Amino acid sequence: MGYVHVYTGDGKGKTTAAIGIAMRAVGAGKKVFLAQFVKGMRYSELISLSKIPEITVKQFGLDCFIYESPKQIDIDKAREGLDLIRNIITTNKYQMIILDEANIALYYKLFSIDELLEVIESRHEDIEVIITGRKAPDKLIDYADLVTEMKEIKHYYQKGVHARKGIES
Amino acid sequence: MGYVHVYTGDGKGKTTAAIGIAMRAVGAGKKVFLAQFVKGMRYSELISLSKIPEITVKQFGLDCFIYESPKQIDIDKAREGLDLIRNIITTNKYQMIILDEANIALYYKLFSIDELLEVIESRHEDIEVIITGRKAPDKLIDYADLVTEMKEIKHYYQKGVHARKGIES
Repeated sequence: MGYVHVYTGDGKGKTTAAIGIAMRAVGAGKKVFLAQFVKGMRYSELISLSKIPEITVKQFGLDCFIYESPKQIDIDKAREGLDLIRNIITTNKYQMIILDEANIALYYKLFSIDELLEVIESRHEDIEVIITGRKAPDKLIDYADLVTEMKEIKHYYQKGVHARKGIES
Repeated sequence: MGYVHVYTGDGKGKTTAAIGIAMRAVGAGKKVFLAQFVKGMRYSELISLSKIPEITVKQFGLDCFIYESPKQIDIDKAREGLDLIRNIITTNKYQMIILDEANIALYYKLFSIDELLEVIESRHEDIEVIITGRKAPDKLIDYADLVTEMKEIKHYYQKGVHARKGIES
């Protein structure tokens, strides 16, 4: 039986933990589908993940609305992602499905928590689901089997350091 | 200038976050040295990381003493690791050095925090250092630029689920 993990909180390490768990799963013979919601930028990790054929990455976002409010295109992209997951999650083509930043998609109401839970609930019994992003809703935390909060204790952004290629992006 | 990151706390995702950040760094053209202290088991992630030539992994442990007290061989292995890091950290051969479970090595006094900080302090200016493991000592937290606590909110071990291949190991 596959479990549902949530990585949330304001601290660093949510997406990277999902990537690390994908690498671990591949090492154990699993195939992984990594859906990145909200994100559309070519993050550095995509270049190295492309060397791992067992991990399929697909982005469903434009990477810019989070500074303002979502547009129809943001909603359309997120829904396209959810629809694709709805189709593959009932099969055993992938044994791990990562919904990176799905919490952010929920926060901006690109789709609803009830829709997401319905999709997850319909999963093939072998599939492990990993959900990341700040602000995980209580309903998701209640549903999940495993929840980790990444808590920011200290961050160099506070010292005025900006996001750096290969570290934050 | 490379920064010092610490991932600590009882929650899941410390080692996997370090692996994910290694993948991101490689995507940005960096070379990564991943030293695993205390660990000696062939974790699943090592199989997939072996496909990424820019990441070098070396283990310095036996993976068993944590249930009892450390033996001389545990101390020797950890010190061998620290000595190796001491040599490479002053060069720019790697631009990221990960000391996985170094906090556990500190906790069991396999080496001291002062020794570790002296090694880190001597680093080549381009090197980013990532340190993981529960129970990061206060002195390390004070020294680090970025600290994330992985806080366990919910864990299926509480339900009696055991560690599973490709997820926890």
